[in-house]
Amino acid sequence: MFAKILIANRGEIAVRIIRACKEMGISTVAVYSEADRDALHVSLADESYCIGPAAVQKSYLNMGSILSAAILSKAEAIHPGYGLLSENPKFASLCEQCHLGFIGAPSAVIQKMGDKDEARRTMKAAGVPVIPGSDILADVDAAKVAARKIGFPLLIKARAGGGGRGIRLVNSEDELENAFLSASSEAESAFGDGACYMEKYLFPVKHIEMQVLADQQGNVVCLGERECSMQRKKQKLIEESPSPAVSEEMRRQMIEVSTKAAKAANYVGLGTIEFLLTQDHQFYFMEMNTRLQVEHPVTEMVTGIDLVKWQIRVAAGAPLDFSQEDITLGGHAIECRINAEDPDNGFRPSCGRVTLLHVPGGPWVRFDTALYQDYFIPPYYDSMIAKLIVHAKTRAEAIRKMQAALCEMVVEGIDHNGSLQIDLMNEPAFIDGSYTTSFLENRE
Amino acid sequence: MFAKILIANRGEIAVRIIRACKEMGISTVAVYSEADRDALHVSLADESYCIGPAAVQKSYLNMGSILSAAILSKAEAIHPGYGLLSENPKFASLCEQCHLGFIGAPSAVIQKMGDKDEARRTMKAAGVPVIPGSDILADVDAAKVAARKIGFPLLIKARAGGGGRGIRLVNSEDELENAFLSASSEAESAFGDGACYMEKYLFPVKHIEMQVLADQQGNVVCLGERECSMQRKKQKLIEESPSPAVSEEMRRQMIEVSTKAAKAANYVGLGTIEFLLTQDHQFYFMEMNTRLQVEHPVTEMVTGIDLVKWQIRVAAGAPLDFSQEDITLGGHAIECRINAEDPDNGFRPSCGRVTLLHVPGGPWVRFDTALYQDYFIPPYYDSMIAKLIVHAKTRAEAIRKMQAALCEMVVEGIDHNGSLQIDLMNEPAFIDGSYTTSFLENRE
Repeated sequence: MFAKILIANRGEIAVRIIRACKEMGISTVAVYSEADRDALHVSLADESYCIGPAAVQKSYLNMGSILSAAILSKAEAIHPGYGLLSENPKFASLCEQCHLGFIGAPSAVIQKMGDKDEARRTMKAAGVPVIPGSDILADVDAAKVAARKIGFPLLIKARAGGGGRGIRLVNSEDELENAFLSASSEAESAFGDGACYMEKYLFPVKHIEMQVLADQQGNVVCLGERECSMQRKKQKLIEESPSPAVSEEMRRQMIEVSTKAAKAANYVGLGTIEFLLTQDHQFYFMEMNTRLQVEHPVTEMVTGIDLVKWQIRVAAGAPLDFSQEDITLGGHAIECRINAEDPDNGFRPSCGRVTLLHVPGGPWVRFDTALYQDYFIPPYYDSMIAKLIVHAKTRAEAIRKMQAALCEMVVEGIDHNGSLQIDLMNEPAFIDGSYTTSFLENRE
Repeated sequence: MFAKILIANRGEIAVRIIRACKEMGISTVAVYSEADRDALHVSLADESYCIGPAAVQKSYLNMGSILSAAILSKAEAIHPGYGLLSENPKFASLCEQCHLGFIGAPSAVIQKMGDKDEARRTMKAAGVPVIPGSDILADVDAAKVAARKIGFPLLIKARAGGGGRGIRLVNSEDELENAFLSASSEAESAFGDGACYMEKYLFPVKHIEMQVLADQQGNVVCLGERECSMQRKKQKLIEESPSPAVSEEMRRQMIEVSTKAAKAANYVGLGTIEFLLTQDHQFYFMEMNTRLQVEHPVTEMVTGIDLVKWQIRVAAGAPLDFSQEDITLGGHAIECRINAEDPDNGFRPSCGRVTLLHVPGGPWVRFDTALYQDYFIPPYYDSMIAKLIVHAKTRAEAIRKMQAALCEMVVEGIDHNGSLQIDLMNEPAFIDGSYTTSFLENRE
């Protein structure tokens, strides 16, 4: 096992990883930007290094600084958390070159899954249902031919895409040429790669993702699904496990397919396979995320398995000590993301001093955060300031528990979306589980 | 179900009960002393009433004030929490007379179990092993006769005893007369009842208690055991479930005996049957507590059952919707009591303003408290300010989780026993599970 780990992240996920390390007897190294000197992850870690100014490009994305801190502190591995460098194949590869463990997928796998077209082809070859679509399109004419086969509406997507860039929705053939050219040129300038392909545009859909975990010995398990359909502008707001839309039989199929897919990708580590689920109960591969997800706690709650500890263990070469048959999903878990933003004013991001903090508590209530009273939330980073997670025997009880916990939560001094989350917990479409990814858009 | 409940308590347990009510859709009424105007339970409840000055006799033990508040607020039931009025048969009876539900055992059962001699006889008749001892002793001569049968050392105990009063340890016959007379007169002045009996003094022993839950329909379940042997002056400091000293077979026997005992006592509600476990693996009935216990969370964690919600449900007449076969004990839970006292200065109680509070968190870490940053801990009440509870797959993992969580906890501005708890988590006798009730005494 690693004796010391550097955590190349900030906020609640850095705190989460530090806690896992402490329980495992692993020393922790925090890195922080100049704006994060007073951050909680810095005080909880055993040692810490400033890696640059506030801007993420100069600090949390500064590979040189982070690797230097790792070498200087004699860390044996780096945990990248989520976002930032977590799915950067170059960073994973640099870690490998520096003989530092990278607590994530191997760089070659990150690379392969980051290429949306290759990921799609890998999955298809493994027998995973993929969204009907095309291969890489040579030019507009090729796009037109492919579009007639797929049918409208459809999506043009950049091979190198990410963060919603290089994606165009096309409703009819006369929109096709412009959309293709603009998607391609946007991708060219954003990623240096203008190659695009097309997919049928499925709607309304649910976003269902499967959690997989693979060790270096070739063992793969799938820890059930998470439903993440409550989204605003592609950002998840609420996640739950199990999904109210997934039957026992569908879960069995999705677990089987996901395990096959992870094996086909030679996957190692913790990974998430995202699917779209249509109204006629068909599921289609969307993409694979080769990292720990924000919403991992709901899976932890229903499986009783600590995903961060296992991610560290398999990165260190330990084999899984349980198999698929040992995994049971118990009860129902829900996570609400608490964002420092004002839902009543166009979700304007909020920052400033937390003048009063009351952490909701009680049995089966978990509040993952890096907040503390008097903490100053800096304006430079992601607006998510906390995750409120509840676990109960049934979905109905979990909803009531979440309502009560949201009502109890107090974060004063800044704007946050707690009241929106309370409203969502009372939405009939949430309560009956029928909500799709377009629910919030249609509601606004 | 009750529409509104008054909580006749303060501190973390009032907060715990309010949370359960909120999840159940029950309105809550807090009561508070003049010293508790700024207490958390007051801000969390839907409404609140001041019931008197700081001294518990004039507020939290003031039955008239509390019943008036209940009637005024149109509460349908009273939850007494633990301590205070929770095992007062007169209060339970007054609630019954006022047509207020009492969320606890029926007054007749409280009365019966409060009479230590009668409780002992009830249990003995039900086939529960009781500590070898005597009936009520008429005088010193009767004591001498009985003592010869029982053997020394032995304990003289007051029938009406409680809180350690009216108890004497007797090592030899020449100590007997003085001990008997002083125990009897202490009991006479403390309880108005000088009647005493004797029990063999068993040592070293473990304190193992069984959680039972009975509905008004006569269904009784037993939710496994809690080990509470880590005690200082009869006050529990650490509790865990399951006990490292209880084998599968012993648990089966203790569950059977406890269920039988609860039925014999015509028990209704949540109750705890305390046993002493000797080194030769024999267990003996000690007493029955007819209330929610401080340490109930460890049972909740391993069974997944919310004891407070069920206590409220059965008080309202709902039948249990699960039976003994449905109960499984999963993983291992530990609770550390955090007391505002200075372990380095004779456990001197501490009070004052909490200048910095950091609640430990992460998966399967629970922190039941009524603290908040800037809260002023008043000097008038029990020194317990928080309960830190962890749950993990194995006992070893739970201990590591507790160590990490204790290290993370920050309560500044007052003295507390966090560092002592860290030390205890590292004690070989705790780690190997061999500790008995005399461990702390021998350690000091």
